[in-house]
Amino acid sequence: MKKTTLALGMHDKLFKRARTMYQIEHRICDLLMTKGFLRIETPTLEHFEVFSDVVDNGNYNFFDKNGDLVSLRPDITSQIGRVIASTQVHTPIKFSYSGKVFNYNEEMRGLSNEHTQAGIEIIGFPVHQAMEEAVISAKEALDAAGVKNYKFEFSHARLLQLIFEELDLPAVKEAELAAYIRDKSITGLKEFTKENPSQYDKVLEQTKARQLTDSEAFLTALDSLEVLTNRLADSLPETTLDLAQLPAVPYYTGMMFKVFGDKVPDAFVSGGRYDKLFERFGATELTAVGWAIDVDSVYQAVHDDVEFGGDLDD
Amino acid sequence: MKKTTLALGMHDKLFKRARTMYQIEHRICDLLMTKGFLRIETPTLEHFEVFSDVVDNGNYNFFDKNGDLVSLRPDITSQIGRVIASTQVHTPIKFSYSGKVFNYNEEMRGLSNEHTQAGIEIIGFPVHQAMEEAVISAKEALDAAGVKNYKFEFSHARLLQLIFEELDLPAVKEAELAAYIRDKSITGLKEFTKENPSQYDKVLEQTKARQLTDSEAFLTALDSLEVLTNRLADSLPETTLDLAQLPAVPYYTGMMFKVFGDKVPDAFVSGGRYDKLFERFGATELTAVGWAIDVDSVYQAVHDDVEFGGDLDD
Repeated sequence: MKKTTLALGMHDKLFKRARTMYQIEHRICDLLMTKGFLRIETPTLEHFEVFSDVVDNGNYNFFDKNGDLVSLRPDITSQIGRVIASTQVHTPIKFSYSGKVFNYNEEMRGLSNEHTQAGIEIIGFPVHQAMEEAVISAKEALDAAGVKNYKFEFSHARLLQLIFEELDLPAVKEAELAAYIRDKSITGLKEFTKENPSQYDKVLEQTKARQLTDSEAFLTALDSLEVLTNRLADSLPETTLDLAQLPAVPYYTGMMFKVFGDKVPDAFVSGGRYDKLFERFGATELTAVGWAIDVDSVYQAVHDDVEFGGDLDD
Repeated sequence: MKKTTLALGMHDKLFKRARTMYQIEHRICDLLMTKGFLRIETPTLEHFEVFSDVVDNGNYNFFDKNGDLVSLRPDITSQIGRVIASTQVHTPIKFSYSGKVFNYNEEMRGLSNEHTQAGIEIIGFPVHQAMEEAVISAKEALDAAGVKNYKFEFSHARLLQLIFEELDLPAVKEAELAAYIRDKSITGLKEFTKENPSQYDKVLEQTKARQLTDSEAFLTALDSLEVLTNRLADSLPETTLDLAQLPAVPYYTGMMFKVFGDKVPDAFVSGGRYDKLFERFGATELTAVGWAIDVDSVYQAVHDDVEFGGDLDD
């Protein structure tokens, strides 16, 4: 008799969950292909360096039969960066994808270490046009998936970078600050700014930003965000500016956005601009904007809606 | 600058290939769900024991953060066996699935170590009814995928078992015979039967079987095959009996079938009966019939057909 328990962080999906997740994934993928995002499929396994400069212990890493250290992909965007940099694919180009991604969850809370992601990459287009198309397509993907309530949170990678540059903290202090920001710990942030004062104290404490700093670079990044959110105001249900949003992956260079729902703790969507990604692979700098939607989180939001999950073609 | 080469046996799929493989997978999955096969999704990683009693070096094996030896799944049928044996799922039940499977190809011929599979399992139904439904649904899946020419080859796991039992060979000789059968090496088989004569010599040399042995068990297995192929004769385009087909996976116990095309060396479909699978996980013996289709092989067969791969809904 064999072991019948599941491996760490792995789960079966049956019945309504399996069928509905299938439908969500394929409604999103069909929509994106219909809108001109070319399908791309990248492998589940890659050399670890595609995803990070040093071995990332949050990833599933192991040696294959070649003796190469490979990772189960934690994201698909890095792979598309590799494709663009190493093949004869012409830009500008727009891709869409879906598939499994893997990472170890640090907390042992029964969280899944395998997620289904779908997403897009818009490469080599004028960046404002690309950013608008990314945000609008993310909204349409959520609508196609049947998500009823969601909120866009915009930020800019430059904002936190400027704060970190000015504070010039030792690595351990920087990690502490990052944790407070990630957990939106007001108490933690207040104590931190008391111990490490700077012109950004009020920004970090999540109050109004524009009046509280006169850093020109900071205000320029804020301006670009406000231009975008004003232009998209009629198309989106609800938007906020989050001045201290941590990038979901380290390669973001400009505007970023996340989409949250009221029933689900994790973001449905993470997206933004990451022109530097291609440089990592030795390619010319190219504008790049994209997003990824977490199908597992979307399922959490929609599974109570009886009208979803019925016939395949409803 | 980072490594931009692909890991061993891994490939990118772009443009027509990516879009067409997506369409093939989803036409098959949609068809199967419409026909009452409930969608199931099993994890990419499992404890290695789910797939084999001892570590199989043809699989991707590694230690996860728990310290458990896990495998990237080489098949999905074994996982469904685990689900049936370890959960409260009521039988009879019919499942359908699709997803990635992984194995190391021994030859370094640029073969892909990652494949997309779709398939079904029919569990706990009367076996003749299940076998017919399996064969017919495999045919319909190939039709839905746009495959124009294909041939069903039927066999029975008992036939080779009887031959092996009678010959009672040392392991190394058994492996040699299995290799000749797998490669359909007539020369190898003739030399083998000369050195290891038995009543099955002519069977192994791939000539007419019924007249060439009077083993009752052998003829009983042949009878059950002929009943099935006669009953399905009007529904299938072309069928043959392959008397010495090696099981695609070791758990087959009865009738088996493979489907081949003329453009593609590997089978599109492998299927059959494997009642013993659930016993491995400590469950009561249940009838079980299923098949898996290799979407990569199907793509090889259909990619020249211009009418496929166009609009999503054609």
